[in-house]
Amino acid sequence: MPLAFRGRGNLRGCGITGLTAPLLAASQLVVADTMNLWIQTERQELCKLLKMIDGLVLNDGEARLLTERENLIVAAREIIKMGPKFVAIKKGEHGSLMCTEDELFVLPAYPAEQVIDPTGAGDSFAGGMMGYLATHHSFSPATIKKAMAFGTVVASFTISDFSLAGLQKATRADIDARIAKLREAMNF
Amino acid sequence: MPLAFRGRGNLRGCGITGLTAPLLAASQLVVADTMNLWIQTERQELCKLLKMIDGLVLNDGEARLLTERENLIVAAREIIKMGPKFVAIKKGEHGSLMCTEDELFVLPAYPAEQVIDPTGAGDSFAGGMMGYLATHHSFSPATIKKAMAFGTVVASFTISDFSLAGLQKATRADIDARIAKLREAMNF
Repeated sequence: MPLAFRGRGNLRGCGITGLTAPLLAASQLVVADTMNLWIQTERQELCKLLKMIDGLVLNDGEARLLTERENLIVAAREIIKMGPKFVAIKKGEHGSLMCTEDELFVLPAYPAEQVIDPTGAGDSFAGGMMGYLATHHSFSPATIKKAMAFGTVVASFTISDFSLAGLQKATRADIDARIAKLREAMNF
Repeated sequence: MPLAFRGRGNLRGCGITGLTAPLLAASQLVVADTMNLWIQTERQELCKLLKMIDGLVLNDGEARLLTERENLIVAAREIIKMGPKFVAIKKGEHGSLMCTEDELFVLPAYPAEQVIDPTGAGDSFAGGMMGYLATHHSFSPATIKKAMAFGTVVASFTISDFSLAGLQKATRADIDARIAKLREAMNF
């Protein structure tokens, strides 16, 4: 079981800067999101950080940049060797994948027919995912997978309108309905 | 139920040329694969054909070319209006989707860690899908979804080596094992 941190959801998302060891010690699950800038300009610091976190969320281009591997599953496995217990790679309209030492998860994007503005979709995915984890009492791979489906659906509301308008209109019932629809659309 | 053709699998894949009405009448399921050349040079003939077939298989670029719609789900729905009872859109490493008048299916690609040569992946997908349909007694959406998972896995063997080498080594047990692995990797 690669994810040792359990208990009530006490978790933090963190950028590469401003992270201190006491903060890490006080948290039960630490997930970082990184970006091309830090990979290109602060690789050494970033690699130190990767050893201190539980999970990393990044997009496909960033995963390739970080690992210099084209195949995203190979890239995800390389990132696991760098320290995190799980890595979630976002692929925009093509969905996402998640890797732990033992598991591999692939998830299509929510099948959205109307995309008004994709700005913030990746951040909404990560935010929705972390929000789900914060309200659940497990950080097991099974919970992280459900959290990713939650994030996928949250992102689908973000892209449905400009700025926060799509998100602000979405109720928890709307999110749950889309999760059910996503699950149904994947069923074979 | 949009797919009216049932019974023992008597089906044909067809190109745009050489197709006659008697051939169509004798078949229980007719699925066509088209390509950019026919879309660009023989659109009128192709549109006539689309009214005579049950299913269309094409890739993402072709679906966009045919419908002039960027969003693939919107494109799929447009193609359904053109005649076929179902359309399967192949997205290479990003998986596939399938649409009928009532249903939408999204499927990730098989998570392949070693891709030697992607040549023929799309044709292997279509071939595997048609092979599965030919051995089953239903052309229902549920069967087509399973057939797409079968095609996805067949394609994963094609890309694992050059030419037919990857396919030739694969046994039915290997295919079934990968279908189970794909299902597990999608489970949340």
